[in-house]
Amino acid sequence: MLPMLQCETIWTRAKLATIENGRLRIVDRGLVAAMDGHIIYAGPAADAPALEAARTVDCEGRLITPGLIDCHTHLVFAGNRSAEHEMRRTGASYEEISQAGGGIKSTMQSTRAASEDELVAAALPRLDTLIAEGATTVEVKSGYGLDLNTEMRMLRAARRLGNERPVTICTTFLGAHALPPEFARRADDYIDLVVDEMIPAVAEAGLADAVDAFCENIGFTTAQTERVLAAAEAHGLPIKLHAEQLSDQHGAALAARYGALSADHLEYLDEVGVAAMARSGTVATLLPGAFYFMRETRKPPVALLREAGVPMALATDCNPGTSPLTSLLLTMNMGSVLFGLTVDECLAGVTHNAARALGLCDRTGELAVGRQCDLAIWNVGDPAELVHRMGFNPLHDRVWRGQ
Amino acid sequence: MLPMLQCETIWTRAKLATIENGRLRIVDRGLVAAMDGHIIYAGPAADAPALEAARTVDCEGRLITPGLIDCHTHLVFAGNRSAEHEMRRTGASYEEISQAGGGIKSTMQSTRAASEDELVAAALPRLDTLIAEGATTVEVKSGYGLDLNTEMRMLRAARRLGNERPVTICTTFLGAHALPPEFARRADDYIDLVVDEMIPAVAEAGLADAVDAFCENIGFTTAQTERVLAAAEAHGLPIKLHAEQLSDQHGAALAARYGALSADHLEYLDEVGVAAMARSGTVATLLPGAFYFMRETRKPPVALLREAGVPMALATDCNPGTSPLTSLLLTMNMGSVLFGLTVDECLAGVTHNAARALGLCDRTGELAVGRQCDLAIWNVGDPAELVHRMGFNPLHDRVWRGQ
Ligand SMILES: [Zn+2]
Ligand SMILES: [Zn+2]
Repeated sequence: MLPMLQCETIWTRAKLATIENGRLRIVDRGLVAAMDGHIIYAGPAADAPALEAARTVDCEGRLITPGLIDCHTHLVFAGNRSAEHEMRRTGASYEEISQAGGGIKSTMQSTRAASEDELVAAALPRLDTLIAEGATTVEVKSGYGLDLNTEMRMLRAARRLGNERPVTICTTFLGAHALPPEFARRADDYIDLVVDEMIPAVAEAGLADAVDAFCENIGFTTAQTERVLAAAEAHGLPIKLHAEQLSDQHGAALAARYGALSADHLEYLDEVGVAAMARSGTVATLLPGAFYFMRETRKPPVALLREAGVPMALATDCNPGTSPLTSLLLTMNMGSVLFGLTVDECLAGVTHNAARALGLCDRTGELAVGRQCDLAIWNVGDPAELVHRMGFNPLHDRVWRGQ
Repeated sequence: MLPMLQCETIWTRAKLATIENGRLRIVDRGLVAAMDGHIIYAGPAADAPALEAARTVDCEGRLITPGLIDCHTHLVFAGNRSAEHEMRRTGASYEEISQAGGGIKSTMQSTRAASEDELVAAALPRLDTLIAEGATTVEVKSGYGLDLNTEMRMLRAARRLGNERPVTICTTFLGAHALPPEFARRADDYIDLVVDEMIPAVAEAGLADAVDAFCENIGFTTAQTERVLAAAEAHGLPIKLHAEQLSDQHGAALAARYGALSADHLEYLDEVGVAAMARSGTVATLLPGAFYFMRETRKPPVALLREAGVPMALATDCNPGTSPLTSLLLTMNMGSVLFGLTVDECLAGVTHNAARALGLCDRTGELAVGRQCDLAIWNVGDPAELVHRMGFNPLHDRVWRGQ
């Protein structure tokens, strides 16, 4: 008799959908087994070793994908910008909105005025909405404090979200998100503060898993951005970058030069930037929610990225100003409808490639031995239904680290 | 002592949002009282009569809107067209999709092959999704049978949905949705069948609350459509029309001439059509889900409709081919983002004006005395949040006919 492999839980009679070498692989009669929160087998039931499980879950033919990963969010903030959105829809200009007190500074003021508890309480319903659709890993950026105390408070609030709910939270320090009013016309001085005080303090406190910046004509210049990236590197922190959203600042190529995990948005990315990202293995994180909500027309160069083999992730960019989106299912739909991504690309974009964009691809994002057992179990027979349908949540169950 | 007004339930400490004379009216400290399933008071708590209620619900400041109304759906169908969507996203032409077995005929074949029970079972998850976002009234069209038996079976399945769930179902006969293959190149003969057999049978059986047709260059001509409308009128059935979606066929003006409840889609509606609708009081039902999903660029003439005082409704158009959408919240968001509707117009579009589009505006769609007590209670403070956020469902509770 063969020795039995001990495990905590097996999920039987499942259809598995996972990304393998960049392609969607479907296993019709599949089985997943977990021990100590990790996958010890995922594949055809017929090929599984002999297993002795404390618990067996019959999936009755349902689809299992890796738990979903939202690799770019601004989930922690206070306040509400509905009045600003209404002005935009009825034709107000950026300047009119700004003069009426809208824009990122309005969120900065509300966030500075909020306690850590208030920030956690405001973010939880947004996080719960992501979780209700199968998210098991969520990245959260700072960037609405724009002073040391509030930036640290945002990151602590983000870390606490991971204690409040069964989900992996990755934090990103985004002090260089916008210029706070007290530094008006002194952007270089603000970058001094980010580089000399904020990054060292955040790194020292272990509050950030990565550092990000907003490289844009309405954000920071490429030179200012490079100072931020160099400081992150000096403190051993991985790099991400908001790049080429509204214009081509060659931010993605800069990020690639620093070995960035991801460059995000990328509507104005050119061929040189694509080639640089391909060489460095930097993930292209596409954010169709912002593209949709702001009624942009210039799309990221999906065909070039695909051809060059740049891994593409998809994320909500959840934020109160330009993408008040808390659905990875809808994000996949927008990736398909608005950017022409295939079903395989959409699913990879919120699983394996999203994990890569967070430096976690050896930990989650795949149904593979050794990964955390993070699963989403769906009441659909085909992953295409997760992508094409709109405003529908067929999640049956969700597993985070085997539970 | 004043006599107490008896009622079953009162909802206290609520913020009420309702449409009054076409404008959103907010009552901050509001109260709703219901008796026998109908509203006997809705307004400021301070102005309420003395009430004695069997049950009191403390809304703790939450927002109450009328229960939402989806006034245009094709919710009953069998099959799945994911393969076709994937072909479209990757650039296949309409002809290639059609040759690969896609298009409406694929849904027709699946629907003809499905039993009434199967149609009910397939539609229920879609209906449940609408209900989970506060829908209390849903219109359902036939139109995938295109033969008498299947059209009747679809309408019976639709009626049954209203027994399975606490929701008002309105049925619409849409035999003139497409030309079935057995009538290829004999559209007039098919219209004979619709007019001479189907409409009389459906009317006799009491299975349809209205009659609809698809007036379009890929549907039926204006002359064929008029025969359908005349037959509906002869049988005392109200009229709706799919009009001006892909070209200007002057369908809306025709519908208006027949006193139609609504003309739907309307991307190509011209000023003459707008004026005709204004004169007849026909509702303009806008369907931004199909506009989005099919990546259309021509928008309905919202400014003209607004100026002419044509009431605008918004609906999902839920269907497997061009709008696999089951969210009225997302529909409102698309109405705002894609068509530039205001928050007031979006909310009116899925409440009062949607009720008008179904001939039900004296029964539901408003927080007003005498209407059915159909309510949606939301965890938001401002109706704008229902419109601007994406992929978020803040429904706290839902009341249908007082329960
Ligand atoms: Zn962002
Ligand atoms: Zn329709």
